[in-house]
Amino acid sequence: MVHRLDDRYRAYIACLNRKDWIGLTDHVADDVRYNDELVGLTGYRNMLVADHDAIPDLSFDIELLMYDDTHVASRLRFDCTPKATFLGLDVNGRRISFTENVFYRFDGDRIKAVWSIIDKAAIEAQLEQA
Amino acid sequence: MVHRLDDRYRAYIACLNRKDWIGLTDHVADDVRYNDELVGLTGYRNMLVADHDAIPDLSFDIELLMYDDTHVASRLRFDCTPKATFLGLDVNGRRISFTENVFYRFDGDRIKAVWSIIDKAAIEAQLEQA
Repeated sequence: MVHRLDDRYRAYIACLNRKDWIGLTDHVADDVRYNDELVGLTGYRNMLVADHDAIPDLSFDIELLMYDDTHVASRLRFDCTPKATFLGLDVNGRRISFTENVFYRFDGDRIKAVWSIIDKAAIEAQLEQA
Repeated sequence: MVHRLDDRYRAYIACLNRKDWIGLTDHVADDVRYNDELVGLTGYRNMLVADHDAIPDLSFDIELLMYDDTHVASRLRFDCTPKATFLGLDVNGRRISFTENVFYRFDGDRIKAVWSIIDKAAIEAQLEQA
């Protein structure tokens, strides 16, 4: 049975938010590409684990969601406290808020490709004000 | 008559690429918001003119486009040569390639709100290699 991709996507985000790294297999293809690089499920999982290690209060919040039969587009909001550096910036335990605009291509129920951009400039602006 | 938003969006991008700053009135609402700030049509036009001044070979290329009845999501590709600084980075006439992931909310045929993120980290990586 084929599910609507908005439902599939919300289930994927819920999986991330409960740090269910085993369940990720249901949502991400073995040969997933991230920003045009073949990282595979293992590389993708390692990236997420590293993000959660660096940001203990990391949580994914969907602000805007679009979908069709093959793709999802999402604007994600993060309010969190990276322990040290994040994207090369010295955050060092300050609380920051930023967004990510991201596209996903699905193959059936699983994510096959991700094109993500995080708003690094917004974080830089917050760190300059602090 | 209401048009499909993918057609409306492609017409908007064509308007930008021919630098038709008067025609922009047909595509952008008077009270448009850019990244949650009320910039208005005049502020939006000024921003685009400034971008084209800073980047004489600026051209918008749609890599991925999604739409529904009220929103468009687009991944744009830029291959261009900023004359001096861009996003605070000293590009100084080097050729760079980067993407923008951007959402638009339409009110009828015109863009009412834009949520844009440009991949600044990708530009930084290219400048470090140069």
